[in-house]
Amino acid sequence: MTDLTTLALLELHGSLADPALESMNFLNEVANRYPEALSLAAGRPHEEFFEISDIQRYLERYERHLTQTQQLTPEQARRAFFQYGRTKGIIHQLVADNLAVDEGISVDPESIVVTVGCQEAMFLILRALRRDERDAVLAVAPTYVGLTGAAKLVDMPVLTVAGGPGGIDLEDLAATVARARAQGLRPRACYLLADHSNPSGLSLDLPTRHALLELAEREGLLLLEDNPYGVFASDPQDRPPTLKALDRRRQVVYLGSYAKTGLPGARVGFVVADQLVAAADGTQSLLADELAKLKSMLTVNTAPIAQAVIAGKLLEHEGSLVRANAREIALYRENLARLLAGLVQAFPAGSGVKWNTPSGGFFLVVSVPFEVDDALLETSARDYGLLWTPMHHFTDAPEARRQLRLAVSLLTPDQVDEGLRRLARLINDQLINDRLAD
Amino acid sequence: MTDLTTLALLELHGSLADPALESMNFLNEVANRYPEALSLAAGRPHEEFFEISDIQRYLERYERHLTQTQQLTPEQARRAFFQYGRTKGIIHQLVADNLAVDEGISVDPESIVVTVGCQEAMFLILRALRRDERDAVLAVAPTYVGLTGAAKLVDMPVLTVAGGPGGIDLEDLAATVARARAQGLRPRACYLLADHSNPSGLSLDLPTRHALLELAEREGLLLLEDNPYGVFASDPQDRPPTLKALDRRRQVVYLGSYAKTGLPGARVGFVVADQLVAAADGTQSLLADELAKLKSMLTVNTAPIAQAVIAGKLLEHEGSLVRANAREIALYRENLARLLAGLVQAFPAGSGVKWNTPSGGFFLVVSVPFEVDDALLETSARDYGLLWTPMHHFTDAPEARRQLRLAVSLLTPDQVDEGLRRLARLINDQLINDRLAD
Repeated sequence: MTDLTTLALLELHGSLADPALESMNFLNEVANRYPEALSLAAGRPHEEFFEISDIQRYLERYERHLTQTQQLTPEQARRAFFQYGRTKGIIHQLVADNLAVDEGISVDPESIVVTVGCQEAMFLILRALRRDERDAVLAVAPTYVGLTGAAKLVDMPVLTVAGGPGGIDLEDLAATVARARAQGLRPRACYLLADHSNPSGLSLDLPTRHALLELAEREGLLLLEDNPYGVFASDPQDRPPTLKALDRRRQVVYLGSYAKTGLPGARVGFVVADQLVAAADGTQSLLADELAKLKSMLTVNTAPIAQAVIAGKLLEHEGSLVRANAREIALYRENLARLLAGLVQAFPAGSGVKWNTPSGGFFLVVSVPFEVDDALLETSARDYGLLWTPMHHFTDAPEARRQLRLAVSLLTPDQVDEGLRRLARLINDQLINDRLAD
Repeated sequence: MTDLTTLALLELHGSLADPALESMNFLNEVANRYPEALSLAAGRPHEEFFEISDIQRYLERYERHLTQTQQLTPEQARRAFFQYGRTKGIIHQLVADNLAVDEGISVDPESIVVTVGCQEAMFLILRALRRDERDAVLAVAPTYVGLTGAAKLVDMPVLTVAGGPGGIDLEDLAATVARARAQGLRPRACYLLADHSNPSGLSLDLPTRHALLELAEREGLLLLEDNPYGVFASDPQDRPPTLKALDRRRQVVYLGSYAKTGLPGARVGFVVADQLVAAADGTQSLLADELAKLKSMLTVNTAPIAQAVIAGKLLEHEGSLVRANAREIALYRENLARLLAGLVQAFPAGSGVKWNTPSGGFFLVVSVPFEVDDALLETSARDYGLLWTPMHHFTDAPEARRQLRLAVSLLTPDQVDEGLRRLARLINDQLINDRLAD
């Protein structure tokens, strides 16, 4: 028996011992151990409207687009699917069209980098902004774990900004920037979801968006706007413009995802980075081109076949993911409405149980008068057949120790009702236990 | 007119000003400016045997595998294509089967991480090994630029080891390790292609492979074996085992790519990391699971649709990419033979022009008695209609300033002949110019 090569974890990169990376593993592991439990945990799109045959239809649609609209020869079309492609992606014009149609965002397609999901986009922008040990990123709390994890990979500190009931506390943002600078740090950017945030479910109102843009300009901060849930507004007429749509000075780097609106299994996202970069010799480039240089050393390019699938879906719906997701939007609205109505019935005023009221998206947050830890999640999965997410995984704020996140995207309306019944039993049992313990 | 946000390149990550990242850009840019030039530059697989309809056939083949062989329900199969999947990938068993069939490598599928091309695999292993400013990686010169670029992204120094005529100079490897340690560095691993290397075309003979494994064990070095070209041996019977097939102590991290053998447009690669990792509390994990934690924060997972395409191609050929690439292997062998025969004819002994004689793969290196710089490439593309790659992009070694790399994969045999005629004209014109200048 030979000795097997063994590495010490302490001699591998520090991110591997970080709680942010352990969180994801723990949550997935619980879900895998209780496959029969109803999941109000997973922020995954609804599956029932998808058929495997859709993929072929999307591929054929994109092939027709290449040969008929783009006038490519059959050899050129074949090369587009088969061969290594442009680092910034091959569907940038379709992404730009989609942003114009659904979001009223007008950008040069050259400022778009198509990425392997939005996660790669987050990594690229943080890698670019983290030059040395002074560079830090701000993030509104509670924070999506993917941002925290990407920052760990580049050893970049994440400074949290209070979210509060409005989604962002601008006074705290200014104070955090000032404090960081006093400590010798350079806060480069602030990361947030302005619409139906993960995990809070909150959206910024229009005056807050304007004030945030002004503050960012004043402080010389980029805003990293992550917008996977914007199209899932319960009332599409009552949706404020994105920060990027309001952006006049290119202060906003827009992070887009087709995982919720297109097809998670394609892993296609993108970043709009229309900022200018000035070299010492006076030449200028687009930030998108700098991010593409990093991407060329990270994943080379995003699988053209995966881009083609998303392109086909976009083309099939004239560039509108709102139209493509009409059934999903209706379902998520129905699920959210049922959940909110059910919570009112299950927990009358005085029960000590509270929740917020998102205007759309996948998530809402429930606050309870007892500790919500990983052991309670385990109990819930095992004894109540229900999964959800403890909020302490998203923030160190003390109130999060008594909060849980619910997601309404994966289940049918009837399953949401059943999930809520199980949640009510769990919470009421906990309340009784607590009273008995007093 | 508002002021547009402008970032200083000097305040972005240092890799963005690095020549390694500029190299790729420059070479692509020349190729794009002369689309009509014959390319003996691109290390891309031959396109003529591919049809867009192959994709659908591969997807259907994998779907049948899921429902018939794996006994998944239609809902589960749909989920496998559609939804977020396992971070380590969903085709790990098929990858393990492929390694057993084509390479005689026997590994636990759990030690495999499916990645977004081999480039992501290189990034993951370097990110894991770069804990602090002491950690360095060794690489055999001339070095594939993707390795250099990935190292830049994690600020990891690359210490070059002489390649020499045998593909690796083991004395120089030992000396480089000793020198690095004396400087306070920790050399963690040595990166190399043992078969038909890019860019040198060289392969290690069997005694050198054994000696390298022994040296790595003695020095406590991992070997990062990158093997995209192994199946393209001109004589498949005369192929030494890979380092991983000879590895008894799990000293070798094996980096695999389906870009050349499968389909570049799927962007699927993988890493075999069966090393153990020991935590301070005594628990052990597989290095593959640690790399998967990093991947969860980089790209989340490799597009299941892209994995399904590769899986279908593997299944169609009973796990053998040697069988799947029978036509390609024959073509590359023919192209390489024509190129070698043509070089003999064009440059008789005494001409001062020399070249090496690879036993397969995509590349060979030509040495000439004049400077081979980027200006000469520009001249070649513009005036001779021919693209190739100046070797100075792969190494700082002085001899590389008089060398160029030729790739034989993209062209037909007749195009190779024509490319060689153009190359002979270019070289002979240079030789005459040099004589006139004397």
